[in-house]
Amino acid sequence: MNKLPGWKDKALFTPGPLTTSTTIKQAMLCDLGSRDTEFISTVRSVRQKLLALCSTNDDYTTILMQGSGTFGIEATLSSVIPPDGKLLILINGAYGVRMAQIAERHGISTIKMVYPENAQPSAHALETMLMEEPGITHVAVVHCETTTGLINPIEVYGEIVKRHRRVYIVDAMSSFGAYPIDLKAFGIDYLITSSNKCVEGVPGFSIILADTKNLQSTRGFARTVSLDLLAQWEGLEKDGQFRFTPPTHVILAFHQALLELEHEGGVDGRSLRYKENHAIAMSMMQEMGFKPYLAADLGGYIISSFYYPDHPNFVFRTFYERLSEKGHVIYPGKLSTADCFRIGHIGRLNASDTMALMGALRRVLLEMNVTILNSSLEATS
Amino acid sequence: MNKLPGWKDKALFTPGPLTTSTTIKQAMLCDLGSRDTEFISTVRSVRQKLLALCSTNDDYTTILMQGSGTFGIEATLSSVIPPDGKLLILINGAYGVRMAQIAERHGISTIKMVYPENAQPSAHALETMLMEEPGITHVAVVHCETTTGLINPIEVYGEIVKRHRRVYIVDAMSSFGAYPIDLKAFGIDYLITSSNKCVEGVPGFSIILADTKNLQSTRGFARTVSLDLLAQWEGLEKDGQFRFTPPTHVILAFHQALLELEHEGGVDGRSLRYKENHAIAMSMMQEMGFKPYLAADLGGYIISSFYYPDHPNFVFRTFYERLSEKGHVIYPGKLSTADCFRIGHIGRLNASDTMALMGALRRVLLEMNVTILNSSLEATS
Repeated sequence: MNKLPGWKDKALFTPGPLTTSTTIKQAMLCDLGSRDTEFISTVRSVRQKLLALCSTNDDYTTILMQGSGTFGIEATLSSVIPPDGKLLILINGAYGVRMAQIAERHGISTIKMVYPENAQPSAHALETMLMEEPGITHVAVVHCETTTGLINPIEVYGEIVKRHRRVYIVDAMSSFGAYPIDLKAFGIDYLITSSNKCVEGVPGFSIILADTKNLQSTRGFARTVSLDLLAQWEGLEKDGQFRFTPPTHVILAFHQALLELEHEGGVDGRSLRYKENHAIAMSMMQEMGFKPYLAADLGGYIISSFYYPDHPNFVFRTFYERLSEKGHVIYPGKLSTADCFRIGHIGRLNASDTMALMGALRRVLLEMNVTILNSSLEATS
Repeated sequence: MNKLPGWKDKALFTPGPLTTSTTIKQAMLCDLGSRDTEFISTVRSVRQKLLALCSTNDDYTTILMQGSGTFGIEATLSSVIPPDGKLLILINGAYGVRMAQIAERHGISTIKMVYPENAQPSAHALETMLMEEPGITHVAVVHCETTTGLINPIEVYGEIVKRHRRVYIVDAMSSFGAYPIDLKAFGIDYLITSSNKCVEGVPGFSIILADTKNLQSTRGFARTVSLDLLAQWEGLEKDGQFRFTPPTHVILAFHQALLELEHEGGVDGRSLRYKENHAIAMSMMQEMGFKPYLAADLGGYIISSFYYPDHPNFVFRTFYERLSEKGHVIYPGKLSTADCFRIGHIGRLNASDTMALMGALRRVLLEMNVTILNSSLEATS
């Protein structure tokens, strides 16, 4: 750490961990006992506020699970699908693939409908599949495929899944808090997100919003102890406590993050800021000649993928490091078929931060002697 | 949260989360990208420093795993035992029971040697069992059974386990950092601890110290994705990165905690402070008439259990709440056979904090009109 004390943190244009506010981080300057009254009341408040963000309905409950978002996905898949269940996964990116990997590790019977990373899974094909395969008990999909930034139409799928009376699991990791989601209206039984995404907390736990009745019907299904979703919920319901040590400081930060989300006007207010970050980045990147990976109607305002410029001087590692030295952290790509990098629009960053990134980016291209030939017109055409 | 801003935190006389230093918490006032150079170098430093605490030997490696200590236990048990393996667990408390619960959840063949909560498992019986049951491949035991505070002789068991060529797994959750442990000399293949115990970090991840060769021989054994120990290690070795989002802030705090542990004189220096906390608590509690649950030669200096006083006015909940109101958080018991409460001696607390607790405790007894009759002589006899 060769930085000056108090030196400004780099701005994180990533899918998370994100840039968070000073006040959210300061909420961690406190040691609470994990079984003490004050912490228990914080956990209760967190659970209630989370539910209020996406449901006005009493049918749902909140579970907090230690670990990263993937731990929440694995907790759900390994806890709610019965031994004789069958999971259909709609896949159009790395996070859909990861769900399949998890299900398969647990010996869960799985059907994968795999689509290109730049296309939404077909609602029509989903309906056909559900009609043809009565053995399918659960359907899972990623809302914002962070691989690309593509937004899948979860409400369209949800209507179909519910009409066919299947259980619907949505990975809303990077969209929750920034996209309006109504659990009941979308037909969602389980939604998974994480502490360090659009609520703008710090990393350390995942969040599962669950249809209480369905959750209660999963007794005996859990394939692990730590990630046992029903047992975790029962612990939280019984006395407000976690079964195993919770990340107390991270939860205090998250409580503050929820207060700041309310202050910003909730999901609607926050999405305005992210949309502006996204709009500025898209227009300025294309003006510089960068070509977005996704068609404009598929990419959301969470994160965007751009092709590497077609120039011999462009080396991503150098590009990344030079931007990082200038105080801006972007994100490598994760595509299986194209060389891309990603720029996130989420976290405590605003239009001014995004313009600062654009300025630095242009400067780095100059330093690297990368000129993007006549692509400006092409990209925006 | 009805406390004044900046009000002093309560002192946590618990098994964790613990009271930590202000500087350790302040290390969290920074957002780092989880794939950025600075964070990667912090993780490397943390992994090296952990190993240096308990081994001068190159045979070992460090894995950090998201989640609480139990997640580290489950990561180990569910990742390193082959499908046809058999686990022997020495049990004398709730944490031994939990290991068995985890093993059984994963369908791992398990033999339990169960002892009373106030006695050490018999080394002789262990040796006999290993001779009689050639199918046993792994042996697991808890070092400090936090249920009571009892210290099990892990080096004695280790000599036997190694002589019989079995793999040795030690849950050193609440002892690591406070008790000298030499992995090689003790014959330990896997040691599990957590970020929020005697290194005095904040909660959010567990730590597994592993014999590298043994770990490399476990390919294909992992029963989960999130808690896959070998895959987690391979990720950390490959590019210094976690497979899934790490708790960046918690790891920054832990790095600072390791620096402060070094500054205190390492394990030896730290143990002096804990031993003093323990000695003060034991003598003053007994002087007040409280009777310790364990014989003096069995209880360590991590945490101590005391019987409820035999007085009609004593109600633990009231006792706990009044101490908490006065700024001292103690811990309920977890025994299956006796009504006890616990007082921890670990975390950033010293002799003066322990005496303050004793003063408050005496005051609460007065408020509750609890007099402990002639037990002082009895308890110390």
